[in-house]
Amino acid sequence: MERLTFVKVGGKIVEEADSLHALLRDFAAIQGYKVLVHGGGRLATQLAGQLGIESRMVDGRRITDEAMLRIVTMVYGGLVNKTIVAGLQALHVDALGLTGADMNLIRSDKRPVKTLDYGYVGDVKEVNAGLLISLIRQGVVPVLAPLTHDKQGHLLNTNADTIAGEVAKALAGHFEVTLVYCFEKKGVLANENDDESLITALNRYTFRQYVAQGIIQGGMIPKLENAFEAIDAGVKQVLITKASDIHLGTGTRIY
Amino acid sequence: MERLTFVKVGGKIVEEADSLHALLRDFAAIQGYKVLVHGGGRLATQLAGQLGIESRMVDGRRITDEAMLRIVTMVYGGLVNKTIVAGLQALHVDALGLTGADMNLIRSDKRPVKTLDYGYVGDVKEVNAGLLISLIRQGVVPVLAPLTHDKQGHLLNTNADTIAGEVAKALAGHFEVTLVYCFEKKGVLANENDDESLITALNRYTFRQYVAQGIIQGGMIPKLENAFEAIDAGVKQVLITKASDIHLGTGTRIY
Repeated sequence: MERLTFVKVGGKIVEEADSLHALLRDFAAIQGYKVLVHGGGRLATQLAGQLGIESRMVDGRRITDEAMLRIVTMVYGGLVNKTIVAGLQALHVDALGLTGADMNLIRSDKRPVKTLDYGYVGDVKEVNAGLLISLIRQGVVPVLAPLTHDKQGHLLNTNADTIAGEVAKALAGHFEVTLVYCFEKKGVLANENDDESLITALNRYTFRQYVAQGIIQGGMIPKLENAFEAIDAGVKQVLITKASDIHLGTGTRIY
Repeated sequence: MERLTFVKVGGKIVEEADSLHALLRDFAAIQGYKVLVHGGGRLATQLAGQLGIESRMVDGRRITDEAMLRIVTMVYGGLVNKTIVAGLQALHVDALGLTGADMNLIRSDKRPVKTLDYGYVGDVKEVNAGLLISLIRQGVVPVLAPLTHDKQGHLLNTNADTIAGEVAKALAGHFEVTLVYCFEKKGVLANENDDESLITALNRYTFRQYVAQGIIQGGMIPKLENAFEAIDAGVKQVLITKASDIHLGTGTRIY
């Protein structure tokens, strides 16, 4: 099977012109088929602030009322997505910006209200990758914004990590997929204060050992559990690495 | 050759929920292959106003400085485009939202500064329709936002009428293209105060007669000249009609 690299980047990197340009050059240098998934939360918060709309986050997830949905549709689907697409085109990468509504790529359900109403937030139900696969094989490089739809006319805000994971899984039967999550560090570190203490590879067994020893802890645990879930669903490997290293293939390899 | 209908709609119709929903239903009812091209200028002006940015228009064209480019990228490429895409998906139309940067569909040059600097405004230079044609034949319905790019990393604001005309011409060798321009009236009227005075068909000869008689005048003349230019470039017919009549095939037929 041919190789496909999924890169998920969020945070400041995609939101500031200099770091974005460096990222796009590194992304352009990745060999073989590829897909970019981006965030844009800081810019959404900034625009909301300028419009006098309050941003409410719970456990890192954005409460998305109607006004906030308009903002993320503008920022994720428009500003960030199309800036990336135009930037990649200048680097001879034939980028195509997509939300989950485009070609009905990702259908989601509005998250049910339990203790908390997240508003227009979607949980992924179905990925329709047929046309996407054919476009990728024709040399198109999809750029995915963290928006999905419910197939009933509503756009829904959806976490970019989830989008990357779900679409990567849907393509795993068609390509040898590497899923790359960009991180502020070089990868998973044995000692978070020592950048040289990179754990270069993790399988489920060594992961459990590190957790038992307290070396891997906190928010990294669910992140890695998601990575193993992707592996179980057929993704060949997950890489956690620094944005500037995406074209090098270094970082923590989860297999 | 198979039929393809290009519909260009702008103005309030695409910017208010009720009229947009009616439009999308009428658009969904059009038989055969189709493409929708939209504007969104009022919403851009509104957002600019909320952000304290002044909108400057000259002859109906928007002066687009860097701040305004961000706004039109958000409004045209994000809010309006993705709202339409999600709305069409709910009507079982497999919509795909695109700017001219996506798949390098429309390359333009930044308009040279003569007496006036329009800023980030692009004049269309090249339409790369290969992938678009293949997607249309696979049942995808492109939804085009009025943004192009210069292939050097810059998005450019481009008139939606122009986008519709240029892409229609590029597809004219592959489909039997009807180009529909939505208008506030039923079509070109012999008496602008009488809605029943519709001129049902115009060729170059009858057009010149109406102009000589002063029946067709003002802004309608360049609009119709553009229509004849599209005909010369292989478009089968241009229709000027009311948005609510797009699925009926009525209006003024230019051939």
